[in-house]
Amino acid sequence: MALAAFSILAPILMNRPADLLTSIENPRIKAARKLHTRKGRLAAGHLLVEGVRLLADAWQSGMRPETVFYAPEMLSGSEGSRLLAQLQETGCPCFGCAPAVFSSLAETVTPQGIAAVLPLPKLALPAQPTLLLVLDGIGDPGNAGTLLRSAEAAGADGVIVGPGTVDPFNDKVVRAAMGAHFRLPLRPCANWEEVATLLPAEMVWYVADADAPNRYDRIDWCRSCAVIIGSEAHGTSMPVRVRSTGIQIPMAGAVESLNAAVAGSVVLFEAARQRRATADR
Amino acid sequence: MALAAFSILAPILMNRPADLLTSIENPRIKAARKLHTRKGRLAAGHLLVEGVRLLADAWQSGMRPETVFYAPEMLSGSEGSRLLAQLQETGCPCFGCAPAVFSSLAETVTPQGIAAVLPLPKLALPAQPTLLLVLDGIGDPGNAGTLLRSAEAAGADGVIVGPGTVDPFNDKVVRAAMGAHFRLPLRPCANWEEVATLLPAEMVWYVADADAPNRYDRIDWCRSCAVIIGSEAHGTSMPVRVRSTGIQIPMAGAVESLNAAVAGSVVLFEAARQRRATADR
Repeated sequence: MALAAFSILAPILMNRPADLLTSIENPRIKAARKLHTRKGRLAAGHLLVEGVRLLADAWQSGMRPETVFYAPEMLSGSEGSRLLAQLQETGCPCFGCAPAVFSSLAETVTPQGIAAVLPLPKLALPAQPTLLLVLDGIGDPGNAGTLLRSAEAAGADGVIVGPGTVDPFNDKVVRAAMGAHFRLPLRPCANWEEVATLLPAEMVWYVADADAPNRYDRIDWCRSCAVIIGSEAHGTSMPVRVRSTGIQIPMAGAVESLNAAVAGSVVLFEAARQRRATADR
Repeated sequence: MALAAFSILAPILMNRPADLLTSIENPRIKAARKLHTRKGRLAAGHLLVEGVRLLADAWQSGMRPETVFYAPEMLSGSEGSRLLAQLQETGCPCFGCAPAVFSSLAETVTPQGIAAVLPLPKLALPAQPTLLLVLDGIGDPGNAGTLLRSAEAAGADGVIVGPGTVDPFNDKVVRAAMGAHFRLPLRPCANWEEVATLLPAEMVWYVADADAPNRYDRIDWCRSCAVIIGSEAHGTSMPVRVRSTGIQIPMAGAVESLNAAVAGSVVLFEAARQRRATADR
C-alpha cells in the first residue's frame, strides 16, 4: 500500500523542488516579466512562452529554452510533467515557483504552470520564396496570430510584418499562432522600403480590397506572389496601394467586408488549392 | 458671430434633452441591462444592440427598435447624430442618458453613446436551402460571430446553431458578426434531432475534420450541402460524426488544426467559388 501510494505521488514529489522561488521580486522573475513588453523583448533578445502545448511546439522545432519556470502546484496532467522532465534531463535551468510567483509571470486566464524564456526565433526566409504573407497595419493580436497560423498551414514561405502591425512576438499573437512562430520565418519591417528589399523583384503584390475589380479566384497563384492584408479599420496603406494589384473576395448579401484573418486565410488557401491542383496534373 | 457659434452648437444642443435619465436604477435601464444575459433575452424576446454601425445595419434591414438609449456627451460624429435624428423622427422612443447611466448599459470598451432594444431577429429559412452552416459546440463568441459574418458573405442560406454553441445573441457574437444577425436566418437548436428536422433530407452533411480522408476542394459544393464546424477544443460531437462525411483542409508544416472560424470560412468560400464557376459557365 505504501509503495502504491508512493508510486502515484512520485511524479508530483519529483517535480517539487526543495527551494521554490517565493518572491515576485526575484531578479530572474523580474527579468522574465519584462519580456511581456516589446521593448523588453528587443533589449533581451528573448521572449516568454507559456503553456505546455506552445513549449512542446517550440521544443520540437529545435528551440532550446534559456530558463524554465514552473509551479509544481499548477502543473497538472502527465503531458506537462513529461515536458518538464525532458527539459530538466537536457540540463536546461528549471526553477520551481510558488503559485503567486508563477502567476506574476503568466498572461493567460488559467495558467498551466510552465513557462520558458526562449531566444527570439530568427528563421531565415528561403532564398527564392514563392508565397509570402504581408501584414499591413494589422493591429488586433488575435487576427495577426490567426494569420500566422493560416500562413503556415497554407504553405507560405514566410510572413513579412509590415509597419503599423502589432509586434508579432506579443503574447496574444504567439498564443493565437499556435506554434507558427517556431516554424515559419517572420520578418518585422519598420517601413515599406525594407519590405520591398525582402520581396523578390519578380514577386507580384496582391492586396485584398473589397472594392478591387479582380476576383481573387481568377488570379494565377502558381506564380511568385505576396498576399497583403490590411486592417479592417484603416484599410490599405498608401505605399501598398501604389505598388499592388487589388483583389476582392466576392461577397453576397449586404456584407461590406470580411474579418482580416478570414480574408487572408481565404486567399492563402485558394493559393494552396491552385498549387496542389497544378502539382496533381 | 453669435449666429455662427449657434450653428456649430445646434446639432449638439438638439441632441441634449431636457430630462436625461440620471439613475442606473431607472426601470428602463435595469430592464435593458437584463438583456446582456441569455435568460433575460429569452424572457423579454429582445436584445440590446450597441453602436452606430450595428444599429444602422439593423435599421437598414427593417428592424425597428422598441427603445433607444443615447448619451449626448458620448455620441460624437455626424453619423451617430444622423442615426439618432432618423430614429427620433420615426417616433421611436429615445431616452437621453447621463454618461454613467449609458455606461452601465454598454459592454464595449469605448461606447459610441447609442444603444437600442430590438426584437430578437427571427428570419425564416428559405423553403429549400442549398447551403447551410451548422455550428457544433463553438464556444468562443468571437469565432461564432466571425463564422456568421463569413456565412452571409459566402451566400449561405442560414446558420443552424447546434447544441453546445455560445448563444448567438450574446453581445460579443453580435459585434463580431457585423450585422449578419439582421440579414441571415439563424436557428438555435437544443439537440441534434431538432437540427435534423431543419435540414432537407437530400442535404449532404460535411464536417471539417483534420483527420478525414476527403479533401474539401474535391467535394461538389453545387449540391445541397451543410458545412458543420466543431470546436477546436472538443472536436466533432458524436451525433454529427455518425451522420456526416468528414472533409479536411490540407495543411502544410507541422500545423495540427486551423482556427475554427478560419476552417469554416475556407470551406464556405470554396463552396461560393464553385457555385460562381458553375453560374459563369
